[in-house]
Amino acid sequence: MTPETALFADDPHMFFPGPVDVPDDAMAAQLKPLFGHRSDRMDELFGAVQERLRKVFCTDSRVYLLACSGSGLQEAAIRNCVRMPHTGAKVVVLVCGGFSQRWHDVAAGCGRTVVKHELPWFEAFTPDVVAAAVEQANTDGNLDAVCLVHNETSTGVMHNLAGISDAIRSAAPNALFLVDAVSSLAGTEIRCGDWQLDICLTSSQKALAVPPGLAIGAVSDRVLERAAEVEGRGWYFDFLNLEAYLARGTTPATPAISLVQSLLIQLDRILEEGLEVRWQRHRHLRDFTRQWAVDRGFSLCVPDEHASMTVTTLAGPRGWDLNAMNQRLAAAGLAVGSGYGKEKGKSFRIGHMGELRIDDLRRLFEIIESCTG
Amino acid sequence: MTPETALFADDPHMFFPGPVDVPDDAMAAQLKPLFGHRSDRMDELFGAVQERLRKVFCTDSRVYLLACSGSGLQEAAIRNCVRMPHTGAKVVVLVCGGFSQRWHDVAAGCGRTVVKHELPWFEAFTPDVVAAAVEQANTDGNLDAVCLVHNETSTGVMHNLAGISDAIRSAAPNALFLVDAVSSLAGTEIRCGDWQLDICLTSSQKALAVPPGLAIGAVSDRVLERAAEVEGRGWYFDFLNLEAYLARGTTPATPAISLVQSLLIQLDRILEEGLEVRWQRHRHLRDFTRQWAVDRGFSLCVPDEHASMTVTTLAGPRGWDLNAMNQRLAAAGLAVGSGYGKEKGKSFRIGHMGELRIDDLRRLFEIIESCTG
Repeated sequence: MTPETALFADDPHMFFPGPVDVPDDAMAAQLKPLFGHRSDRMDELFGAVQERLRKVFCTDSRVYLLACSGSGLQEAAIRNCVRMPHTGAKVVVLVCGGFSQRWHDVAAGCGRTVVKHELPWFEAFTPDVVAAAVEQANTDGNLDAVCLVHNETSTGVMHNLAGISDAIRSAAPNALFLVDAVSSLAGTEIRCGDWQLDICLTSSQKALAVPPGLAIGAVSDRVLERAAEVEGRGWYFDFLNLEAYLARGTTPATPAISLVQSLLIQLDRILEEGLEVRWQRHRHLRDFTRQWAVDRGFSLCVPDEHASMTVTTLAGPRGWDLNAMNQRLAAAGLAVGSGYGKEKGKSFRIGHMGELRIDDLRRLFEIIESCTG
Repeated sequence: MTPETALFADDPHMFFPGPVDVPDDAMAAQLKPLFGHRSDRMDELFGAVQERLRKVFCTDSRVYLLACSGSGLQEAAIRNCVRMPHTGAKVVVLVCGGFSQRWHDVAAGCGRTVVKHELPWFEAFTPDVVAAAVEQANTDGNLDAVCLVHNETSTGVMHNLAGISDAIRSAAPNALFLVDAVSSLAGTEIRCGDWQLDICLTSSQKALAVPPGLAIGAVSDRVLERAAEVEGRGWYFDFLNLEAYLARGTTPATPAISLVQSLLIQLDRILEEGLEVRWQRHRHLRDFTRQWAVDRGFSLCVPDEHASMTVTTLAGPRGWDLNAMNQRLAAAGLAVGSGYGKEKGKSFRIGHMGELRIDDLRRLFEIIESCTG
């Protein structure tokens, strides 16, 4: 690459599952002059981003853009899609790691009736298991929604979205399917329209490779119909409010303009690379990481069939010194992710999302190997 | 100013009430390398910002930092401070413009019992009026909170915070005083501690002169005691959750790191200028704007005693052509604010916040005058 086309002035240094290294041009876009958020320039920027987001989310409907983290949109999903307990309504939350546990906590914090269906960490939900859980929860026909974290950033488990979506529609046709794709959207195949995802949410700092501070969610018509029946949606996360402003080509509150400028650059980069090429590149990064791990005697914490395209969790061979590796990496200016929550100190996570290439991983692996002596 | 110390490579061009022009160094800070939000570097940045925020908010307690707009913190204030209707609790919202109306809509949207006390636009609440409204609403002792927009960005009305705070404490000692200071904090005297403001919230893109995307709120101990009694606080805006993470020196969700870097630069600039000097500078900008308006035959929409330090709303003399003025300003790359909402086309608003100086206003006024012939 020539300096003009180089993505990074320096090599990427963050190999954890987000925030990820942001290409220089997308970083620099934050410096574009600001303008009023009720101006033609804002409408233009917002329109350009909306058009591209629909392509990247593979949807014909709408994609909302909010100043908040992904957890904010987890809360928005609950507040708009799940009616209050006095109606008899409930929500199933499928929990198999730290971020699906968070979604559970969010739903409970919003005062909803939550049915928690839990698997041990590093295991994945299959369509059959989900169908059974959903049928059981929906015997009274009051199941409003099912929440799934597509790609558990805490474990590196990825779910079969299309299959689980079918299973839910068969078992409980009125239940909305709410998907957290924070660490997978734009890193692997997700077709919000074809797969009938009612909500698919992500945040800026993961596979989109934008600085943190924006959350983005594709939302189906069914969600808006439900929202009209749900009390206490509030204002900031109220989808009917967002929809009313989207119809006028803008947002209810002041958006994080500098981050939206950065997002526009990245959306163009993603569409230029081509969605299917990008998904394939991440698959290669995943396969390369897992093969290297096996070759060097590391244990893969997640079996092949559920292995994430963007996060790989590994445990070292017996006698392996995690602290020594981290110190060696830090000395080289690099970092991997520690095990999440209760896994801290037992395993580590390699994030391979955003604009990383095989050569970036090679550089990382060389340093890790230098610790094995 | 030498180029090294110049705040802006180009002159400021935004004279509306936010977003405002951001000094070059605070813009450039967005380009600092990103890092993990569970890293020592994040804890260090967060600690530095927290220390400075307490000084700027004049409080010894805590200041929360969230990725959202000011409206998000309006919602957080309601969700944490006002109990649900079945408890008998209610909230008084003092409405005299577009943003206090929004706070009303937020409170109603959160399903709370809202007592709306309304004045015509361009009028201000006095301590006496507030005391009477609060006493009336609190006859059953169930008034949980009173919401006031300190500086109505829509009209340019500014309230007597200290006086109103005293009035509320006398009339209803258990009611929390919740203050939206979105367009005034760091532009005029606000002493959160001395004046016993239970919540004082602002957002990044107004008088702090940081790009949009961050909301900031100083929160009293009384608020945390109340929050523990309020159901359905959710997760993203739950102050008890924010408090638990603050105790560990961090935030629950990924913060907008690049915007926090920008904020740090501006907090240092504000403290270097000196809070009282900065407040005085804004008073001069206000007085200069109003004197110029009177001299040129414009009408002041707000009387002297309630005139905002950061936003001045003006109506043109008879025959004055607002569109022609806006075109002339646009040709020079400048913009003022249109009248807000129902005032659009009838008046216009000059924002004089952030890092603007008298000379910047002179440049603006010269162009406006060139339209009067």
